[in-house]
Amino acid sequence: MPHIDLPSGLPGILGPMAFSPETAKPMNELAEVLLRAPSSLASGEREMIAAFVSKRNDCHFCQASHGAAAAHHLGGAEDLVDRVCRDPESADVSDKLKALLAVAAKVKVGGLEVTEADVERAREEGATDKEIHDTVLIAAAFCMYNRYVDGLATWAPADREAYREPGRMLAEEGYVSLGLLLAGQAPQRIR
Amino acid sequence: MPHIDLPSGLPGILGPMAFSPETAKPMNELAEVLLRAPSSLASGEREMIAAFVSKRNDCHFCQASHGAAAAHHLGGAEDLVDRVCRDPESADVSDKLKALLAVAAKVKVGGLEVTEADVERAREEGATDKEIHDTVLIAAAFCMYNRYVDGLATWAPADREAYREPGRMLAEEGYVSLGLLLAGQAPQRIR
Repeated sequence: MPHIDLPSGLPGILGPMAFSPETAKPMNELAEVLLRAPSSLASGEREMIAAFVSKRNDCHFCQASHGAAAAHHLGGAEDLVDRVCRDPESADVSDKLKALLAVAAKVKVGGLEVTEADVERAREEGATDKEIHDTVLIAAAFCMYNRYVDGLATWAPADREAYREPGRMLAEEGYVSLGLLLAGQAPQRIR
Repeated sequence: MPHIDLPSGLPGILGPMAFSPETAKPMNELAEVLLRAPSSLASGEREMIAAFVSKRNDCHFCQASHGAAAAHHLGGAEDLVDRVCRDPESADVSDKLKALLAVAAKVKVGGLEVTEADVERAREEGATDKEIHDTVLIAAAFCMYNRYVDGLATWAPADREAYREPGRMLAEEGYVSLGLLLAGQAPQRIR
């Protein structure tokens, strides 16, 4: 049961976001820019970084949601996303993405963990300053989203099937649209 | 030296924010709502939670900046803020704030660390659902800001004096104003 009285029926981050729309707005805008704005890192790659960090933080809701969004971007590649979350070095992704996931893994532990060697490896695999910046911030941001979801003890569906359609919506329609939809759908629940 | 080529002369989070104004905007809006919007938790208390979490994450820039903002809100109470960052249970703050700082300490470690007993203690000391929500999200958000600052190896002044005037500006003028000022002052540095 959630630690505070959240609108019922909304899984994961959606309950706290309906409870606090004024903080949900910038949080959704940040996710939109980080994961869906035009970038040399594909949205599927950025969503994989998000799912990977969420997995390391043991946040089932975020890992399943962003894993489903990543898989949708990648034409349904759920097995690949699972492999990246479990063991990125052995997954069939680019060496650049592997190096960026290694940076993300350090950020998950703490900002001071990231070494020059970690960044140098990413750069040698072709990562730009903007890609390194975005990887650090995606990993840092999911250290926030994950703690928000679990620090309030929200509930989340266990089954993967429950995340496929939301994952498609996140991938195709985005985070700001979702936030507006949520605010419009549940106005009487918002205090 | 920062891990990527950031605008020079800007300490801490200001370099990455000038590098990436499109992510800085929602990050500043989130800080503004969390730390300065009207609330039953005073801004001084909320800035203390921010400084405390930053201290636990070993993020000198954020701890010094938000510690200075907290002290400014509290009439210059730097010693009190230092005590809260070191050992909140022995500090001269309300039992409610102590209980909320204990929740924040758990969120710093991970969302799943927060127990019903932690929340029950806060509630018994008079904390509302909104205050518990805001404490969890402030702590979670500083797990993001701290990792952003240190994950890119930004530089920060060591001396407390360097943070007093910026702390006053954050307390009196806020995060969105600061962001606009930064964007206006350094447009040629923004890619």
